Amino acid sequence: MMEKKGKVFICGAGPGDPKLITLRAMELLKTCDVVLYDRLVGKEIIDQIPAGAKKIYVGRTVGDPTTHQDRTNELMVKYAKKGKSVLRLKGGDPFIFGRGAEEAEHLIRHGIKFEIIPGITSAIASPAYAGIPLTHRRYSSSVAIVTGHEGAEKDELAVRWDKLAGAVDTIVVLMGIGQLDQISRDLTRAGMKKSTKVAIVASGTTEKQKVVRGTLGTIAGIAKKADIKPPAVIVIGKVAGLENLEWFR
Amino acid sequence: MMEKKGKVFICGAGPGDPKLITLRAMELLKTCDVVLYDRLVGKEIIDQIPAGAKKIYVGRTVGDPTTHQDRTNELMVKYAKKGKSVLRLKGGDPFIFGRGAEEAEHLIRHGIKFEIIPGITSAIASPAYAGIPLTHRRYSSSVAIVTGHEGAEKDELAVRWDKLAGAVDTIVVLMGIGQLDQISRDLTRAGMKKSTKVAIVASGTTEKQKVVRGTLGTIAGIAKKADIKPPAVIVIGKVAGLENLEWFR
Repeated sequence: MMEKKGKVFICGAGPGDPKLITLRAMELLKTCDVVLYDRLVGKEIIDQIPAGAKKIYVGRTVGDPTTHQDRTNELMVKYAKKGKSVLRLKGGDPFIFGRGAEEAEHLIRHGIKFEIIPGITSAIASPAYAGIPLTHRRYSSSVAIVTGHEGAEKDELAVRWDKLAGAVDTIVVLMGIGQLDQISRDLTRAGMKKSTKVAIVASGTTEKQKVVRGTLGTIAGIAKKADIKPPAVIVIGKVAGLENLEWFR
Repeated sequence: MMEKKGKVFICGAGPGDPKLITLRAMELLKTCDVVLYDRLVGKEIIDQIPAGAKKIYVGRTVGDPTTHQDRTNELMVKYAKKGKSVLRLKGGDPFIFGRGAEEAEHLIRHGIKFEIIPGITSAIASPAYAGIPLTHRRYSSSVAIVTGHEGAEKDELAVRWDKLAGAVDTIVVLMGIGQLDQISRDLTRAGMKKSTKVAIVASGTTEKQKVVRGTLGTIAGIAKKADIKPPAVIVIGKVAGLENLEWFR
């Protein structure tokens, strides 16, 4: 008898506002046998998983830097091999700093079928809710999305802040709050003016959204004073100064 | 008597697959009085606008390079001033090369309230449906999204291809098919190897999706031979070579 195999749906849940999830993600949430979800997936979304489905939290816990990824990989394979449909639900988008590709590679090694379902990344949505257009005909024809997280593991690539400074009109940094002071200094050392506009959107698209604004020279102090905590998106460039477009308060 | 004023919702419809629209966009589609929609919004989505709503196509037509934007601006203001709720529905995301900011600025000048509702941009979704992760711990910690469209109008900024070449791990070009040969030459002249992997995803996330792969040295010829037409997303960098992740065929 052939082994019955399931399928894994690696799916983005969007940036926080539960109405910014896609129809496809919602459909999977209602029909999959097992849901493996992250820390950044909102409670309003998790609450809509039917009672008959198995829901498992696979987010990072304190003092557990890497093993949660191994556990997630194991659980995806375990349930798929039992013939279950597995929804791997991630905050944001699975292919924008979401480790979706690594999870897909793990599934390929185990012969499990998968689909990738994009979600709205906070890199774009949080600025939008703060009225910050990442592109604009007069101010920005290029936007870079980078990680501010200094990789603790050897296989992580470094961001080339020195080159980035002159290359694009808008820089969006994810997971950069802890390194904000260093990032500001790296960019100014690479030639960006201290007066370059910077905005930070914390808990973007949710009721807790908080926006602070400053410049490369002032933002680290402003963020500290305002007690900005992750998750937060940092936007650097002229568009970060367009305060008149702010609509969500 | 006070003039009754409406509101405009500048909203992304997603990349093509009608299931990649958000719950919020769908809710607005069902309830707004007037829907102004673009060429890139799918027919399956337009067909769901209730019969009682006014739906108006405001996309570009041949030989009409700029006036359609003026007409869109006028229609948004006209209906909002009549007290109507207006859904301005755009393909992709309104703030990623969608002119959403310019439309919001026009509304501000006329005292009209607005909201910005992000959508999934084809810049991220089309690669995802081709199995291309824009970020990956081993291959990419930075991604730039740029326009390949050579601005015919004076107020458009130019992309700095020379600087971009060494600054990020992944480059995503929107609206670049017509300039593919020039872009490839600009990037190689700036120091990128001719062997750098390139993938093109045309009509991404739809049933017409077509993916071609090559290198900076070969892609222009390959795209021409395959008769690749807009809309298409070009991905440049190591991640464009990860063919084993392709899942949607």
